[in-house]
Amino acid sequence: MFLQKGFTVWFTGISGSGKTTLSNLLHRGLQESGTTNVEVLDGEDIKIHLSKGLGFTKEDRDTQIRRIGWVAHLLTKNNIPNLVAAVSPYRGVRDEVRKMIVHAGGKDSFVEVFVDCSADVCDKRHLERLTSGSHAKEPEDRTWTHEPYERPHNPEVRIKTDTVSPQEGVEMILKYMRQAGLIL
Amino acid sequence: MFLQKGFTVWFTGISGSGKTTLSNLLHRGLQESGTTNVEVLDGEDIKIHLSKGLGFTKEDRDTQIRRIGWVAHLLTKNNIPNLVAAVSPYRGVRDEVRKMIVHAGGKDSFVEVFVDCSADVCDKRHLERLTSGSHAKEPEDRTWTHEPYERPHNPEVRIKTDTVSPQEGVEMILKYMRQAGLIL
Repeated sequence: MFLQKGFTVWFTGISGSGKTTLSNLLHRGLQESGTTNVEVLDGEDIKIHLSKGLGFTKEDRDTQIRRIGWVAHLLTKNNIPNLVAAVSPYRGVRDEVRKMIVHAGGKDSFVEVFVDCSADVCDKRHLERLTSGSHAKEPEDRTWTHEPYERPHNPEVRIKTDTVSPQEGVEMILKYMRQAGLIL
Repeated sequence: MFLQKGFTVWFTGISGSGKTTLSNLLHRGLQESGTTNVEVLDGEDIKIHLSKGLGFTKEDRDTQIRRIGWVAHLLTKNNIPNLVAAVSPYRGVRDEVRKMIVHAGGKDSFVEVFVDCSADVCDKRHLERLTSGSHAKEPEDRTWTHEPYERPHNPEVRIKTDTVSPQEGVEMILKYMRQAGLIL
């Protein structure tokens, strides 16, 4: 059902945790239920259009997240639902983005989805992808799971992708969104 | 009258030519005629949210313009009218942005407004602002008028701000937009 209300679903979690998989499935689920005007801000878009010139220091990563957050807030403010998949390792800047989006779209317009997966499992997934050759990743992505990651204290949804299937995970998100009145 | 159609009005011209003045006046004019959901992407927003880490080489400026263009295209694609004021000195990347936006919003959704003003007049305006102290500018802005600027070949609207008043300039833009069917 089409409510024409803006919101941001923000997937955070270490590399390989399943953010993109969940984001794509949620996108499809929303489309099938009639929310067709959803923008997805994901890896390649972000890399090509927003991250050029930025490195991997904390400052640069925070700048990247603020920038994605600013674009997401513009969309939410204008009632365009959007999904963001970005490691976004630091809690401080995630909370800044939350404030900016809630200010633009109202209470409940920011849905933080913590894609929670053990580093061991993520490492294994990376290795499988690398050896399969079909999803060659850049070197920095391969070390990502060993870099700092601050877990969210109170995410709207937490999905343990070690044990929960992507389909079940998306159902958890949709259930939350229905309860919050973001979709019917 | 509210058509709920996306478009980008892109103001290009050297620093001091009057882009921001025209953009603000056009914003007001559109609001007064009922197009209330207009986003303005201007100097400070761009500096704070999109340009951090970029310098003043041609490559960095092109990256900045592509990035603003990508945000504008997201808005246009989602039927959010938007105004951009950016020097955008290089023709090649302006034309790239035009293509991206027309692809997203259809023929006529990109309105390039060439804010045409002699370097002498712009220099004089800068000097007045600097000495008045009310609009202190950063050093790079002061030399901007002597940096490369490639004039548009076929802008939708060209306003010679040496001689045309801002109000007359906005009327020229609104007239074009009515003829193109972007507003009623």
